[in-house]
Amino acid sequence: MDPEQRYERRKVEVEQYLHNFINEHKPRTLYKPAKYVLAAGGKRIRPVITLLACEAVGGDVNNALHAGAGIEILHNFTLVHDDIMDHAETRRGRLTVHKKWDVNIAILAGDALLALAYRALLRTQALRIQEISKVFTEGVVMVCEGQALDKEFEIRHRVHVNDYLLMIEKKTGKLVSVAAQVGALIGNAQPVYLEALKRYGEYVGRAFQIQDDLLDIVADEKEFGKMIGSDLVEGKKTFLFLEALRRAKGEQKKMLQRVFINGGVPRKQVTAFRRIYEETGAIDSAKKRIEEDITEAKNQLSTLPVSKARETLRWLTDKLHNRTY
Amino acid sequence: MDPEQRYERRKVEVEQYLHNFINEHKPRTLYKPAKYVLAAGGKRIRPVITLLACEAVGGDVNNALHAGAGIEILHNFTLVHDDIMDHAETRRGRLTVHKKWDVNIAILAGDALLALAYRALLRTQALRIQEISKVFTEGVVMVCEGQALDKEFEIRHRVHVNDYLLMIEKKTGKLVSVAAQVGALIGNAQPVYLEALKRYGEYVGRAFQIQDDLLDIVADEKEFGKMIGSDLVEGKKTFLFLEALRRAKGEQKKMLQRVFINGGVPRKQVTAFRRIYEETGAIDSAKKRIEEDITEAKNQLSTLPVSKARETLRWLTDKLHNRTY
Repeated sequence: MDPEQRYERRKVEVEQYLHNFINEHKPRTLYKPAKYVLAAGGKRIRPVITLLACEAVGGDVNNALHAGAGIEILHNFTLVHDDIMDHAETRRGRLTVHKKWDVNIAILAGDALLALAYRALLRTQALRIQEISKVFTEGVVMVCEGQALDKEFEIRHRVHVNDYLLMIEKKTGKLVSVAAQVGALIGNAQPVYLEALKRYGEYVGRAFQIQDDLLDIVADEKEFGKMIGSDLVEGKKTFLFLEALRRAKGEQKKMLQRVFINGGVPRKQVTAFRRIYEETGAIDSAKKRIEEDITEAKNQLSTLPVSKARETLRWLTDKLHNRTY
Repeated sequence: MDPEQRYERRKVEVEQYLHNFINEHKPRTLYKPAKYVLAAGGKRIRPVITLLACEAVGGDVNNALHAGAGIEILHNFTLVHDDIMDHAETRRGRLTVHKKWDVNIAILAGDALLALAYRALLRTQALRIQEISKVFTEGVVMVCEGQALDKEFEIRHRVHVNDYLLMIEKKTGKLVSVAAQVGALIGNAQPVYLEALKRYGEYVGRAFQIQDDLLDIVADEKEFGKMIGSDLVEGKKTFLFLEALRRAKGEQKKMLQRVFINGGVPRKQVTAFRRIYEETGAIDSAKKRIEEDITEAKNQLSTLPVSKARETLRWLTDKLHNRTY
């Protein structure tokens, strides 16, 4: 099997686990939305990283499946609650829970998903289950902190690009890092491998988020599946925006500052702002940062023993780097 | 020390733990509301039960403090989210989180409290930490199920009193039961004591909720601190209401059925409905049930070894039984 096939096999295992995970039917208003969310698909990057991290340190992958699923369920809990807070109407081409049902049901389904995430995690048979549960829990705390910062930034006028990096580290990076760490802990990894996998997750998570910001402005609209420049239209303070703001001068700086005040950009101005991003060097800066993070992530992998799992993680890292959507 | 003093001492320990628990200040929108919630006071029944249950089986009370606090934080998480869903404006004489701040902040503060509940719990040093965490997690799942049922009942016309009992068992009883079970597990209790404490919690939790329903209609308004008959005015399907509906005939039954349709009762009709509750025997039925549950709870305590902690639990049970608010 090549790395892609190995990735796919792990992904299928995660899908099957999630599919069989919720057996309760009542109360319907709780379990229907919870199942709906878990059936939405997606790349399942986090749980596959858990499985591969465990395998890479010589652990039993089957045992890591509980924790991997737990992390994916945790991730889905954050999506349900974030979508309420962001008034998002669709996700992965389907209505969000609070749109398909209502806000109360979405709050409660999210809560239940968080509890169910722990239920899956705690099925793990591992010497270090307490440490694993602590790492998982600190992940939940960080994701909440990251989301709180994200919402604070929306109404704050002065946000430095470093504040943004801290925010995405908590909101996105941490959970990828937790996924890798937990896998390593289940495999009872040596400290040096545990640290390498933890840092691998941090770098990949951050690169992934900056790339999201980048794709929003440079992707091919057809491949990307949504309109280019949505972040600008919604007035989001992305890496690109904050980096351009930091670098811009004169009229360009004024244009960017006006986005704060207006809370967004008319769609027809997206091209003009893309030019500002290019001319200020914000796009190059984002690309450079992604490049550096990906290199650093791969350096971390190099410290692990040679294995198929390590090879698959490396392949996944490149895959994420080269993604176009 | 008499039982009351012993209870108070434990309560003070819990208050201190909670007071010192959150040290983070940023993001402010996350930790300010979280601290606000934990500083609201209250009876702290659940954590004190955890401490006493641990003590009653010969365990180290100091070690049970983490889990006790964890259960209290978990309880507060449910209050924050339930208050959003119920559009409640005040709790314990203060504005609810979503009123003092906003709904998004309340959703996120609730989420963080749930994560922090696990953080506290996982500080426990116990042989059976995985079992403890599982019991705790199943408590969270049950509370979510109970809340979902509660919301379903609001819009359902036919609710049997047995459905109601199942709902409060999940929404209220389970967490009291988890509090006792977790304390027993930290004390590494024998199966028979563990089971007794678990069932003790179930009986106390149910009695407590039915008594809440009863006090709403029979309490002294001054002592009770809120207006009598609020549940009726809000059209809540309480034990009393459902029991009266089950027993009523003729005109009284029609009056009760009209509450479903109108979604409540005008305040000036509360006295008339109180008379229906009395005449149908619903009030006596509630009193009898509370009596039986309290007796059963105390029977469970009798199976434990004689100890000051057991005596304190017995005192607490009577105290809850005789409360007037």
